[in-house]
Amino acid sequence: MAIKVAIIGGSGQMGQWFQRFFVSQGLEVLVADLKTPQTPQEVAALADVVIISVPIPQVKKVVQQVAPHLRPDAALLDFTSVKQVPLATMLDHFPGEVVGTHPLFGPGEASINGLTMVLCPGRGERWFNWLKELLENAGARVKVTTATEHDRIMSVVQGLAHFILIALGRAIRELGVSPQDLEDFSTPTFATLHGLARRLFSQDPKLYACIQLANPANRTALRALEDSVADILYFIQRQNPDGLVRLIESVKEGFISEE
Amino acid sequence: MAIKVAIIGGSGQMGQWFQRFFVSQGLEVLVADLKTPQTPQEVAALADVVIISVPIPQVKKVVQQVAPHLRPDAALLDFTSVKQVPLATMLDHFPGEVVGTHPLFGPGEASINGLTMVLCPGRGERWFNWLKELLENAGARVKVTTATEHDRIMSVVQGLAHFILIALGRAIRELGVSPQDLEDFSTPTFATLHGLARRLFSQDPKLYACIQLANPANRTALRALEDSVADILYFIQRQNPDGLVRLIESVKEGFISEE
Repeated sequence: MAIKVAIIGGSGQMGQWFQRFFVSQGLEVLVADLKTPQTPQEVAALADVVIISVPIPQVKKVVQQVAPHLRPDAALLDFTSVKQVPLATMLDHFPGEVVGTHPLFGPGEASINGLTMVLCPGRGERWFNWLKELLENAGARVKVTTATEHDRIMSVVQGLAHFILIALGRAIRELGVSPQDLEDFSTPTFATLHGLARRLFSQDPKLYACIQLANPANRTALRALEDSVADILYFIQRQNPDGLVRLIESVKEGFISEE
Repeated sequence: MAIKVAIIGGSGQMGQWFQRFFVSQGLEVLVADLKTPQTPQEVAALADVVIISVPIPQVKKVVQQVAPHLRPDAALLDFTSVKQVPLATMLDHFPGEVVGTHPLFGPGEASINGLTMVLCPGRGERWFNWLKELLENAGARVKVTTATEHDRIMSVVQGLAHFILIALGRAIRELGVSPQDLEDFSTPTFATLHGLARRLFSQDPKLYACIQLANPANRTALRALEDSVADILYFIQRQNPDGLVRLIESVKEGFISEE
């Protein structure tokens, strides 16, 4: 009998993406969302693996809703971009196996082959090992870490990266430099950077807002970014080229030393 | 008889690049630098087109040095990344034809084909038209604009782009997240961004310091960036997702409207 996976929030883009993925792996997939015939509680009661695939602010409410309906031998998982709070919430509300996951890619990817999926062990090994094997057999790079370490690294990989792209986009808009001028006078570096910003701004603003707000480690990362901005501006405002060169060199040492 | 081009600062990477380019176009190229047998004054006196290819802080001194030696029917050009001050300096010190140029690419490119070169007319049309035709025939995209407009657009394309990559690099270093972790937990967006930062930090810090300091339009651009950073932080610190969503949406409207 095929393993049954329930995706709660299965009508969202990532939910749909993983529905196709799990089906391609020979699993039976049940989907519940706000407008599906079956409720989250109903599909949760039927599944071996129940995955919460909802926006970060809804995780707590949905976990509270479905957790009492899971079979005791089932596993509760999530797909949220931050891990400390969602994992703690799942552990608090469900006494069985729990795994926190974070797919490090968007719903535009064709296949999971070569893409990275983070797993944060919560409770139990059976379903954790099953999931890890399933993903690795499909070609995914699986990274196992704690929720705290995940959030710390993601405060750079997502927190700072998105922050500077949003700030760049807003500054460009404030300055009123036209998209045509930016394209005509683009350097290879700027063209790449501008492409990243355009891609971000073409996606769901709610996702990016949630990622900025929900990762507790972002506070430290943003403070480091603010300090860096202030340090660079210090030398620019004083027209001090030597100071700025030293600052750039000090970053260079650690930043590319392991290449 | 072949047209003679003198490159002052011809031992630098861009100087060498353009030496190869001009030779490939059938021109005779004379090179002077700190350690060449011929002095800048000597080659300047022999050439039809004299190009200043020195770091921004040296432009004024070198222009003053060579300008009195140019033939009256020669043209004085520069390759500097900012245009207002160098162009004004050349116009002040040489009464003949003057063109400001800015190659929007680095010395790693194999061919000029498809690359962009900005020309800012200074004085005279003969050598300006000759240069424009030469570049276009070789496949370059030539953009003609004023020095003021060049510097305004470059305050975004170079000023802000380099600034945020330097700030990101410094913040990552301060946070102590290892290069290995960043690679293991990378998203497609972060991998691209991190690659841009690594490329910047692997190049000459003096160039980036000069570009930050020498463009008068950077002041306005950096103020817009500081304002944007403050606006985003405002909503993050107040944990206000709706405000942050509205901010992102307001950028989106103008930012990708012309796609």
